[in-house]
Amino acid sequence: MSPSPVTVLGLGAMGKALATAFLTGGHPVTVWNRTPGKAGPLLALGATAAETAAGAVAANELIVACLLDHASVHETLDGAVAELAGRTLVNLTNGTPAQARELAAWAEEHGITYVDGGIMAVPPGIGTEQAFLLYSGARDAFEAHRPALERLGAAHFVGTDPGLAALYDIALLSGMYGMFSGVFHALALTSTEKVPADAFGPLLADWIGAMAGGIPHFARQVETGDYVNGVVSNAAMQAAAFGNLLRTAEDQGVSPELIAPLQPLMDRLVAEGNGSGDVTGVVELLKR
Amino acid sequence: MSPSPVTVLGLGAMGKALATAFLTGGHPVTVWNRTPGKAGPLLALGATAAETAAGAVAANELIVACLLDHASVHETLDGAVAELAGRTLVNLTNGTPAQARELAAWAEEHGITYVDGGIMAVPPGIGTEQAFLLYSGARDAFEAHRPALERLGAAHFVGTDPGLAALYDIALLSGMYGMFSGVFHALALTSTEKVPADAFGPLLADWIGAMAGGIPHFARQVETGDYVNGVVSNAAMQAAAFGNLLRTAEDQGVSPELIAPLQPLMDRLVAEGNGSGDVTGVVELLKR
Repeated sequence: MSPSPVTVLGLGAMGKALATAFLTGGHPVTVWNRTPGKAGPLLALGATAAETAAGAVAANELIVACLLDHASVHETLDGAVAELAGRTLVNLTNGTPAQARELAAWAEEHGITYVDGGIMAVPPGIGTEQAFLLYSGARDAFEAHRPALERLGAAHFVGTDPGLAALYDIALLSGMYGMFSGVFHALALTSTEKVPADAFGPLLADWIGAMAGGIPHFARQVETGDYVNGVVSNAAMQAAAFGNLLRTAEDQGVSPELIAPLQPLMDRLVAEGNGSGDVTGVVELLKR
Repeated sequence: MSPSPVTVLGLGAMGKALATAFLTGGHPVTVWNRTPGKAGPLLALGATAAETAAGAVAANELIVACLLDHASVHETLDGAVAELAGRTLVNLTNGTPAQARELAAWAEEHGITYVDGGIMAVPPGIGTEQAFLLYSGARDAFEAHRPALERLGAAHFVGTDPGLAALYDIALLSGMYGMFSGVFHALALTSTEKVPADAFGPLLADWIGAMAGGIPHFARQVETGDYVNGVVSNAAMQAAAFGNLLRTAEDQGVSPELIAPLQPLMDRLVAEGNGSGDVTGVVELLKR
């Protein structure tokens, strides 16, 4: 079966990377961008540029959108609903679960098959082994277009609720930014003294990697609500020891603002009688 | 060479784990604890219990202290300075770099060889491949006692400045708690919807592990002060996209308090003209 044709809407850095991955995989690609003149290098790879979004949509059954934001998706597609009807829209534009569900409802109303997606990669990673993408919504359409979508990176379908891909995406990014926050604090601390980057950086990377091994257990704790079974270092001990982290930040002249918010949450956990459980119990406090 | 004798001061959960690791490695061990009656299982493994801290110190050349906190170290050892003189004190009590330097100065004044240490493990991990310990201070003494210290876990000597082990320790823990903060936020988000722990937990663990691969690069950026070279996703783009994370938290009824503090820092980075650089530049803002 020869590679199926794809339309790519939006030629920012990410849209261009998506179109390039399809083209190098042998897919005929039609591209469109709000501001003209972005298609140059893609034309050299064999892409066809459409003059209007509606024209680009009309060219193929699979439409991949990667636009600036949720508002841009409506600005681009509201005028192309007639052409979109009966086709599959895979929306890879950054957005929230609520935005994905709003678009899915809008798509259903107009007879458009909707798949939402989240890209867990930067543009240079697209089409490499490092990239993975999350998808949710219309499962059959996803499966039908899987060979094309896998040109972009590993494809994970996470559920028929169209909001789930964005939820997973945002949750993964939140975890990453929390990790970055801790790392920035750590590097601020070590940079106040003579600590070589080549001594500390790899040590911190290995340590974070090793500690990340506990995450599946944390996820099960949250799912079962059991924060007590098999605890090794309980919340009360951790809440008490955390003071050394804040004291060191103060001594070294480093603002604790990125790690400090955990302290009052651990203290509340202890005050509410959950000090003998795991610190993962903090998750419950975030949901009130 | 037969395993060298060791004195262990402090028999909390960690002190007991340390003494057990020495004993199972064949080292003669003398133990002491402020509250008597903690040595039982260690005596069965062949340990000798001393009645006083001074007596325990007098028994061996290598003294390993693992007490409640910095104040406890002075309470325990100020009365044993005569016995400590000429011996090696390896202090594994949790503390800050400033506390380690204070103790090193106190030790020098009294003719005590001082090594400070940080334990990167929970008690059940001591003596296993998962444990590693950081040491700083008197290098020769560390090297002389390395065979004994390696019974506890991998031994990393990070410098002759006695404060460095605590600085590395606190920085690693800060990175870990930042990562935990992000993970707790992520799990709060996914637990608001039907997301199975076994689907999301391993995905988040792998993602954090993959993203931790960038840490050595971040460390070099901070060391060189070059946050611009080779940037893929700059601070301005990330600051703008972060809004989706906060909006999703609000939509899902999750408090953003653990990840929100990064937003104003990224915004400041952009406002100060560093939006085209990497978000790692936030480290500079923490040091003002």
